[in-house]
Amino acid sequence: MGRGVSTVARTRPPLVDCDIHNELWPGALRPYLPQRWREYDETYGGRADGGTSYPKGSPRAARADAWPPSGRPPGGDLDFMRAQHLDPYDIRYGVLNCLTTACRQQNPDYAAALCRAVNEWQVAEWLEKEPRLRAGIVVPYEDPQLAAQEIDRAAAHPGFVQVLLLVRTDEPLGRRRYTPIFEAAVRHGLPVGIHFGGGRGRNPLTASGWPSFYIEDHTAMAQAFQAQVVSMVVEGLFERFPALRVVLIEGGFGWLPSLVWRMDKHWARLRDEVGHLTRPPSEYVREHLWVTTQPIEEPPDPRHLLGVLDEMGGVDRVMFSTDYPHWDFDDPDRAIRARLDPDDRARILGGNAMALYGLP
Amino acid sequence: MGRGVSTVARTRPPLVDCDIHNELWPGALRPYLPQRWREYDETYGGRADGGTSYPKGSPRAARADAWPPSGRPPGGDLDFMRAQHLDPYDIRYGVLNCLTTACRQQNPDYAAALCRAVNEWQVAEWLEKEPRLRAGIVVPYEDPQLAAQEIDRAAAHPGFVQVLLLVRTDEPLGRRRYTPIFEAAVRHGLPVGIHFGGGRGRNPLTASGWPSFYIEDHTAMAQAFQAQVVSMVVEGLFERFPALRVVLIEGGFGWLPSLVWRMDKHWARLRDEVGHLTRPPSEYVREHLWVTTQPIEEPPDPRHLLGVLDEMGGVDRVMFSTDYPHWDFDDPDRAIRARLDPDDRARILGGNAMALYGLP
Repeated sequence: MGRGVSTVARTRPPLVDCDIHNELWPGALRPYLPQRWREYDETYGGRADGGTSYPKGSPRAARADAWPPSGRPPGGDLDFMRAQHLDPYDIRYGVLNCLTTACRQQNPDYAAALCRAVNEWQVAEWLEKEPRLRAGIVVPYEDPQLAAQEIDRAAAHPGFVQVLLLVRTDEPLGRRRYTPIFEAAVRHGLPVGIHFGGGRGRNPLTASGWPSFYIEDHTAMAQAFQAQVVSMVVEGLFERFPALRVVLIEGGFGWLPSLVWRMDKHWARLRDEVGHLTRPPSEYVREHLWVTTQPIEEPPDPRHLLGVLDEMGGVDRVMFSTDYPHWDFDDPDRAIRARLDPDDRARILGGNAMALYGLP
Repeated sequence: MGRGVSTVARTRPPLVDCDIHNELWPGALRPYLPQRWREYDETYGGRADGGTSYPKGSPRAARADAWPPSGRPPGGDLDFMRAQHLDPYDIRYGVLNCLTTACRQQNPDYAAALCRAVNEWQVAEWLEKEPRLRAGIVVPYEDPQLAAQEIDRAAAHPGFVQVLLLVRTDEPLGRRRYTPIFEAAVRHGLPVGIHFGGGRGRNPLTASGWPSFYIEDHTAMAQAFQAQVVSMVVEGLFERFPALRVVLIEGGFGWLPSLVWRMDKHWARLRDEVGHLTRPPSEYVREHLWVTTQPIEEPPDPRHLLGVLDEMGGVDRVMFSTDYPHWDFDDPDRAIRARLDPDDRARILGGNAMALYGLP
């Protein structure tokens, strides 16, 4: 805050933060909601059971120091975000992933109206005001037709660089009901970002039911990502959409190599079940999936991180993210302790994201 | 079949197969079931929804060549198991993990009666007849009190070397309701083996619901193991039972290092939620968990398997298994392509299991 660009930042390659959370402040959507849904909102409100976030008292799991003096919630004040995050770390571009229950409301038309309002708010309050920011299109993903309509509408604004889903969907994302979302994303040349979170109480967080502790929830989320990767690959989503690019945001990636080995092994023996796949699962993963770094699994021996990157076939699918302003924020000046080749580090910190999102 | 001990086997260190499946043949349990439950079985039969196994037509997912000429099911004929598996591979010891729906019947008393009958059948038909075999105690694990009673009863036979659970339980295994099972296992100095499979339709296989394909089921099972590891560690099971040893059977282990890194990272920041833990999660895993090899994730580059073993802190928790007679059998003469140090290979092939199970 108030401090200038740090020495580290000045000698660093261009930084792209692929996971910043802009936050709705109370009443933020009112100007963007049609009268019908404003009334619905006031009368009924939302129904979207998805558990609590941490820390409970703080909206959107925010860092203690991220409350702006304006009284807005953390992530809800652009000037403060500039002063606390974009300026001091000299962030070239930041991708906003607005987390809101709009995308998973039980009432599909209400969900669609809220998502549209969120996206209009993102354009007016963020993208039009700050050239360093880009954003994900928030969509009512459990009604894929309505989601596709919102993608078609919002994609016209150049500030939107991806479609944003949350990882805990009602069904695995490769299943056919979600096809319209991926179809629309490909139609507009947008990657699909899948972010930590979501859920509407239909599916327990683990294959053995609900765990007791928040730590377990947070750890189990990586398993939800694994399930989505398997589903997208095995259902043949990347056969149907060869141009589709998917970004896994805030899911880690230390689990990815062994998951791919397991899928390839099964595919080698059971490929007759999935004749729609023409190549080993590893190839779809290698070509179509990107991951963000935060929360990077931190092996006690930093060499092991290099091992994971080697198993992934290199660093070209790994993109830096901070998760600002959340409690488990990764500091750009200190993240990734492993001794990376300088070119590899530059690609992770910005190059890969600039290529994927087409940033100038 | 009929062939003698292979050249490879003769020059190999002692082999312990930690996952052999003995199979109930039709009517096998009749002599061991009390009249009441024999009648129940004939009148009502079992109710234990848990999906199908592969290949569908073959009980217990068996290899095509594993059908004994006697007409018994694969894994159901001791002489044939000797001739096809124990003798030619010169297996010093084999641990039987009998897969049956007995352990997860909806009627708890029926489940307990069936499990007791299964264990009596294991003693009479397998352990008493073949000194190379050991077995897991099958228990009605969704009624932990009844399960503990069966452990107390069966543990008297020295052929039982572990308590056998299936990984897809109704609730995560660290939750307090399962305490009596672990208490009983520790009381008798027995490890608890957790095997691939199970489930009664309560929990979808993934955090995003039911996937479409068998390949996805088989891949997702590794996520069920991850959830159980997290639950056992985070609930403090190993604080409550410092002598408890747990074996993950047929769950792979390529996912274990990154899971541990993730847990340690969360614990470092959120330990106030779980004050009952006195050490980082990694230490509980390192001390209390064992894994079996089949189905080992097979990286295209065998060096990567060495990397995973290095991340696990060495090979002393890894135990060889074939999964005989199932379709995805690992041949002892060909499994583990990576160039292991000969001592390490010997420990994986037999030494670790002999130490864990106290085999002479």
